[in-house]
Amino acid sequence: MSIEPVAGIEPPYYAVVFTSVHQPEVDGYAETAARMMELVKEVPGFIGYESARTPGGLGITVGYFRDEESIAEWQRNREHQAAQRQGRVEWYESYSVHVAKVERSYSFERQ
Amino acid sequence: MSIEPVAGIEPPYYAVVFTSVHQPEVDGYAETAARMMELVKEVPGFIGYESARTPGGLGITVGYFRDEESIAEWQRNREHQAAQRQGRVEWYESYSVHVAKVERSYSFERQ
Repeated sequence: MSIEPVAGIEPPYYAVVFTSVHQPEVDGYAETAARMMELVKEVPGFIGYESARTPGGLGITVGYFRDEESIAEWQRNREHQAAQRQGRVEWYESYSVHVAKVERSYSFERQ
Repeated sequence: MSIEPVAGIEPPYYAVVFTSVHQPEVDGYAETAARMMELVKEVPGFIGYESARTPGGLGITVGYFRDEESIAEWQRNREHQAAQRQGRVEWYESYSVHVAKVERSYSFERQ
């Protein structure tokens, strides 16, 4: 899992916010999620991701991409498409996706 | 805490992605976070928020707002500003904020 906030780069760039609810400890979910997190790194224009999940609750993954084309390439990935189908059939109770163009960012780090 | 994904509304609208790392169980954090989650609901143009935190890891809160003016109003709130200062002094190891204009959204709900 990602353990650091993703620092912004020079805008514009894109954030894809994926929020989901699924049953705890569902078969195969953790392995597939980990595989997707590796696979997305191969997409040209992928910047980074952040992921958090409250036990028994909501999961939020935010993927950052350079442009629309890099998001489209990730959406066209066959293994990703298969994982999405499996997610709808087997894992997710609900999810929302918001695709957004980042206009500004800032960060803080304790000295 | 929010337990449902926020469904999109007709775009454009804004997503503010706030990702943070802090010490576990720091004094006063949970109370202040809960207070902020109540307070933000009073901001005209506030749509909703999603929040998740991996135990011992990253926290992600995404706030959705109608427009730039509603984000600015939340940033001007004195109690919010005081909480942000306290966060930098006492709680956060690091955080990043990405302010992004949502261009499209979609969601899934199990039938």
